[in-house]
Amino acid sequence: MKTIHVELGDRAYPIVIGEHAMHDTAHLKRAIQGSTVLIVTNDMVGPLYAQQLVETLKAIGKTVHVHMLPTGEQYKNLETLNTIFDVLLQQQCDRRTTLIALGGGVVGDMAGFAAAAYMRGVPFIQVPTTLLSQVDSSVGGKTGINHPLGKNMIGAFYQPQLVLTDLNVFATLPQRELSAGMAEVIKHGAIYDAAYFEWLEANTPKLMRKDSESLVHAIVRSCEIKSEVVAQDEREGGLRAILNFGHTFGHAIEAGMGYGEWLHGEAVGAGMILAADLSQRLGMLTANEVERIRRVVQAAGLPVEPPQLGIDNMINMMKLDKKSDAGYIKFVLLDGIGRAVIRDVPEDVLRATLHVCA
Amino acid sequence: MKTIHVELGDRAYPIVIGEHAMHDTAHLKRAIQGSTVLIVTNDMVGPLYAQQLVETLKAIGKTVHVHMLPTGEQYKNLETLNTIFDVLLQQQCDRRTTLIALGGGVVGDMAGFAAAAYMRGVPFIQVPTTLLSQVDSSVGGKTGINHPLGKNMIGAFYQPQLVLTDLNVFATLPQRELSAGMAEVIKHGAIYDAAYFEWLEANTPKLMRKDSESLVHAIVRSCEIKSEVVAQDEREGGLRAILNFGHTFGHAIEAGMGYGEWLHGEAVGAGMILAADLSQRLGMLTANEVERIRRVVQAAGLPVEPPQLGIDNMINMMKLDKKSDAGYIKFVLLDGIGRAVIRDVPEDVLRATLHVCA
Ligand SMILES: NC(=O)c1ccc[n+]([C@@H]2O[C@H](COP(=O)([O-])OP(=O)(O)OC[C@H]3O[C@@H](n4cnc5c(N)ncnc54)[C@H](O)[C@@H]3O)[C@@H](O)[C@H]2O)c1
Ligand SMILES: NC(=O)c1ccc[n+]([C@@H]2O[C@H](COP(=O)([O-])OP(=O)(O)OC[C@H]3O[C@@H](n4cnc5c(N)ncnc54)[C@H](O)[C@@H]3O)[C@@H](O)[C@H]2O)c1
Ligand SMILES: [Zn+2]
Ligand SMILES: [Zn+2]
Repeated sequence: MKTIHVELGDRAYPIVIGEHAMHDTAHLKRAIQGSTVLIVTNDMVGPLYAQQLVETLKAIGKTVHVHMLPTGEQYKNLETLNTIFDVLLQQQCDRRTTLIALGGGVVGDMAGFAAAAYMRGVPFIQVPTTLLSQVDSSVGGKTGINHPLGKNMIGAFYQPQLVLTDLNVFATLPQRELSAGMAEVIKHGAIYDAAYFEWLEANTPKLMRKDSESLVHAIVRSCEIKSEVVAQDEREGGLRAILNFGHTFGHAIEAGMGYGEWLHGEAVGAGMILAADLSQRLGMLTANEVERIRRVVQAAGLPVEPPQLGIDNMINMMKLDKKSDAGYIKFVLLDGIGRAVIRDVPEDVLRATLHVCA
Repeated sequence: MKTIHVELGDRAYPIVIGEHAMHDTAHLKRAIQGSTVLIVTNDMVGPLYAQQLVETLKAIGKTVHVHMLPTGEQYKNLETLNTIFDVLLQQQCDRRTTLIALGGGVVGDMAGFAAAAYMRGVPFIQVPTTLLSQVDSSVGGKTGINHPLGKNMIGAFYQPQLVLTDLNVFATLPQRELSAGMAEVIKHGAIYDAAYFEWLEANTPKLMRKDSESLVHAIVRSCEIKSEVVAQDEREGGLRAILNFGHTFGHAIEAGMGYGEWLHGEAVGAGMILAADLSQRLGMLTANEVERIRRVVQAAGLPVEPPQLGIDNMINMMKLDKKSDAGYIKFVLLDGIGRAVIRDVPEDVLRATLHVCA
């Protein structure tokens, strides 16, 4: 078992990573105060893994309820959220009940927001089961749901007591979801740690074969990077914005294709290559560095070419994105691999980068 | 204008009280950063007061939207909450949009929770229009909505930027609502400040005639007391419990009568007299002190006799109340007027107090 300490003052908590972490009674025992637990999962992950977790929790004397949400981003809404409150109240759960999210980012975001709002806050634990949720959504305290008019528009900043990452969940994780998570992993190297990026260049094939040792290293280093960034900017005023590398383009691709066509990570993969190209045009990356980024994105099974959505269309969608302001568009760019900077970009340079979308 | 500073570290904020406070551009200007404001009110208070506030906000250059909720506690739910998100998104409100609650506690609790959750938190201002919301619900940061299985079960702790109390709203406040707010005012004196309690004994008739000077004094002193208590215990672990004086009985009365039959403040009025009687039986109040409490509750137009709900019935409902634990019931009692203590009470003494409900 590896442990990372996320330093957030009185809301500090550990991320524990290992094989069979779901069977680890010690960490769960330490993290759960009350006698009752509600596991929130979905009807795809629940049948695969809920029983293991239930048994561990029963072994430490907890009363355990399981609530399965329907599977899919389209259910990440107020109506599904309310079913969590229904169960909590039907089971007469009080303030000492711990909510455990067992699933990917969708389950984690919803269960986390339910925990933040139920009785104005009950304890919360994440057991993330996708690479993306392990390295990204379970770190940083963002929780929430979608609204028909916007993604992740309703939510809370809420930190868990514990994040428990069990490597055995990779056994069933579809390769496409693994790739999607790799986009965020590559992003962490690109924006923050050149040595980690080099390690990813060498080890992405092993990661794609779900090699345990490599996965642990990637999850640990990515969680460290994300939590370091978040600890410096918990509420998103400054530094945290660098985590949006590749995302301004990525969001435009997701929106332009219609949500759900491309996975978020796939859009970010292609988006990072556009952002690298833009960085090169502004004199901050060499052609060779851009090529290295392209190769690692490709090795992770992610698209390296954006879809042909049209230049004007892409620009309009980026202007709608919340990271932009009227008149110009702010981008997270790379000033060398491992160093992110935030810059306003002139529209003609942006158009040159986007010629591949024409 | 009178100003109270609520001391909550980086979430400190002022409560401003005065005639025509809604016309006060200075405080609103200081408290509102962005250019857009959404006023959340209801279809009873909105037609009376929204226009004034809109004009003041326009005078300081803000773009103002008004959203009217249906009036009534029965609409304090997820569905109505969602209409606030609908409007925020339809109007493309961003993170810098300020939500202003204009109304009583129902509007304040809902708008406050919407502000806490929209984009994980946007600025929030309260313009409370009932005595209860001025002295109680607008102070302390609790926001939330009801669930069919429980009151105030879903919400957030969220502090406003400013509370603006305009005395002119008393012109239209029904006498019954004024009385309901007085229950909390009397409570503040009883639990925390004997001199204030004496002042209330002398001035309750003036308050019931809506005398401005007396109202200012009561609102200021009550806000000071509540915010002092809350500042020492923001998240409700200890001291804050004394604010539940009269409430264990009160909640049982509300539940037993069916919610909405007795106003919350009416149930608390009768509840405080039961709690005083219980304190006397345990040797902590004299008969004379109990009589003083009864007289001031009566002068505030509140019931001094509980409804005949039956002793066992009352005890069962109190056991369901969240302030109790299996086996015994914890009560906030008075050890002299102005000094609250929390004690487990033997069931036979409790039954003796409850004989009036038989
Ligand atoms: N809170 C944050 O900071 C943050 C950050 C990034 C993304 N997100 C959110 O996360 C969500 C995406 O998360 P995600 O990529 O994990 O997607 P997801 O939760 O939808 O999971 C992807 C799919 O894989 C299935 N699955 C999960 N684990 C599995 C396993 N071990 N074996 C087999 N199938 C498994 C899921 O049921 C789902 O069908 C989005 O809603 C996004 O908004 C949040
Ligand atoms: N957040 C907290 O800490 C806290 C504390 C106490 C109570 N509460 C909540 O507050 C709510 C009760 O608040 P309330 O007593 O203000 O009730 P309310 O908001 O229902 O208002 C009472 C009635 O008076 C009307 N009204 C309000 N102001 C008026 C005015 N100036 N003129 C004419 N009519 C007016 C309202 O439309 C409503 O019909 C409950 O939902 C309770 O749970 C919250
Ligand atoms: Zn992402
Ligand atoms: Zn009350």
